[in-house]
Amino acid sequence: MRIAFDAHGGDHAPDAVTEAVRLAASEWPDTTFILIGRDESLLPEGVPNLEFRRVSEQIEADDEPVKAVRRKKDSSIVVGCQMVKKREADAFISGGNTGALMAAGLFYTGRIKGVDRPALAPVFPTLSGKGMLVLDVGANPEARPEHLRQYACMGSIYVEKVLGYTKPRVGLLNIGTEVGKGTELAKEAFALLEKEKSIHFIGNIEARDVLSGPCDVLVCDGFSGNILLKNTEGVAKAIFDRLKQEFTRNLSAKLAAAILKPRLKRFKEEMDYTEHGGAPLLGLAGPVIKAHGSSDAKAFFNAARQARLFVERGVIAEIEHELTQQEELTSK
Amino acid sequence: MRIAFDAHGGDHAPDAVTEAVRLAASEWPDTTFILIGRDESLLPEGVPNLEFRRVSEQIEADDEPVKAVRRKKDSSIVVGCQMVKKREADAFISGGNTGALMAAGLFYTGRIKGVDRPALAPVFPTLSGKGMLVLDVGANPEARPEHLRQYACMGSIYVEKVLGYTKPRVGLLNIGTEVGKGTELAKEAFALLEKEKSIHFIGNIEARDVLSGPCDVLVCDGFSGNILLKNTEGVAKAIFDRLKQEFTRNLSAKLAAAILKPRLKRFKEEMDYTEHGGAPLLGLAGPVIKAHGSSDAKAFFNAARQARLFVERGVIAEIEHELTQQEELTSK
Repeated sequence: MRIAFDAHGGDHAPDAVTEAVRLAASEWPDTTFILIGRDESLLPEGVPNLEFRRVSEQIEADDEPVKAVRRKKDSSIVVGCQMVKKREADAFISGGNTGALMAAGLFYTGRIKGVDRPALAPVFPTLSGKGMLVLDVGANPEARPEHLRQYACMGSIYVEKVLGYTKPRVGLLNIGTEVGKGTELAKEAFALLEKEKSIHFIGNIEARDVLSGPCDVLVCDGFSGNILLKNTEGVAKAIFDRLKQEFTRNLSAKLAAAILKPRLKRFKEEMDYTEHGGAPLLGLAGPVIKAHGSSDAKAFFNAARQARLFVERGVIAEIEHELTQQEELTSK
Repeated sequence: MRIAFDAHGGDHAPDAVTEAVRLAASEWPDTTFILIGRDESLLPEGVPNLEFRRVSEQIEADDEPVKAVRRKKDSSIVVGCQMVKKREADAFISGGNTGALMAAGLFYTGRIKGVDRPALAPVFPTLSGKGMLVLDVGANPEARPEHLRQYACMGSIYVEKVLGYTKPRVGLLNIGTEVGKGTELAKEAFALLEKEKSIHFIGNIEARDVLSGPCDVLVCDGFSGNILLKNTEGVAKAIFDRLKQEFTRNLSAKLAAAILKPRLKRFKEEMDYTEHGGAPLLGLAGPVIKAHGSSDAKAFFNAARQARLFVERGVIAEIEHELTQQEELTSK
């Protein structure tokens, strides 16, 4: 197996990526890791299953995605997506510009047959520690009911194969748990999901319950999903920052906080998005994973583990099988 | 001034409401408080500025809103909205069924001239302690760009008059801060808000930043707003619950937590929605306020303070003036 890494994506790149490929190469000797970057000296020396692919350009975090992908054809993001298409790599992982990675994925890797729109699908941490796949969180701000049905099918297959969940529970993000709630999109999607035999649909899920992990796959349009993701991250971060401030205000607070620190730390780690690797761009014709922008070496390493399962378990083929079979049934 | 209260709305009703009107009657002797309920014995005795309005029916929390409002015409929610319409009360406060209150408001109180759709507009707590008005959080799951423009105008007037903010900053909830981000709705609303001279529009706001109070009025469609509201509440509650669990796990944790308790408590209070009273149904032809379902006596008392300002400062007339003036300009 061959897994490509974008050396220049993320706040802690290239160091975190370099460290991750070194660890991953040692952990999985059967896999070749390809570092795509501008400077070959980034590659750790003397590791047999590490390769380098030199590029001359770089897409920055604030580049306009579509323009950047069209203009910077020799950037790590474009080259990585092309390598997956050409089967020069079995998977590609990047912590860089999310929009550019999605655009490059669409232009250069292409879609799975039967999928209208790929979705960005991160795992949300839940209090049980199990994690819940949420899709879409912003690959497509707008969605039609049929897209949400496809997200549900893709998400179910992914969590079953990669996260190992049996008969994953699929929920629909909505503004009430009752049937008939929400926008026209939500109502029509509910009807489609209810009819869909290949998934285990459990109904509407409210945003207040997401941390308790009420389902294994949460389906939503990209606009709502993005708000859910960023709000969850933002509220958790604001509370932890504020706690830290309160707990260091004076000596007695500091002493008391020191006793509680291990517990707080463990809890904070459980709430950490990067524990579960990155977010797959589900629906692309090859495994492309968006690692969180703040990923450290451990997070990139976890993404490598995730990419291996993604490839080994044949997720792409299974999605294609499921969705084209449905198309054939519908067109009959 | 006359302020009516729904005796039967909310988890802690009727006791919390009864206690609140007793406190409010003593705090503001110039105001008459009317308790609308099924049992006259609820009314505290011997208070000159307290009145009772007997009703025979009650809308339950799980009643289907529109049906309930049509069938239970002698319920506190319907009667309260009618009293505002008939000027038998200057304002009405209920902690009951949100959907039913909105439906009763539309059917019986009616809309302000120039307003297409009333919006539910709670104040979000922010870390600065200042608070930010968010609208709509679910009165209308679907919205058109023009509705968001009206929300922005109404919200600006409300926070200026009731919360006392000067030149309130208006933001648009979106999935990126850059111009051109989001759905068609978000893009078109952005263009309208930018042109709107009566408000101080500062651009797109991301969901990750809401707790830091990046604006004073946050405009969004009811679906996204509801997700934002419930997710913020849910994530904060889940974290505080978990902290409590961690901090009571053994004796040393309990002792340490005891030292930090006052700080945690203060912080939790700041994050408390009920501190700022209830959520006005902005756009109705009279002041109708939805108190949080979990409101205690203090929260209902704060809602009374809010209702007084709502009436005194002439918010309804100002909204009508602003929005009909705009209509006239547009039609010229």
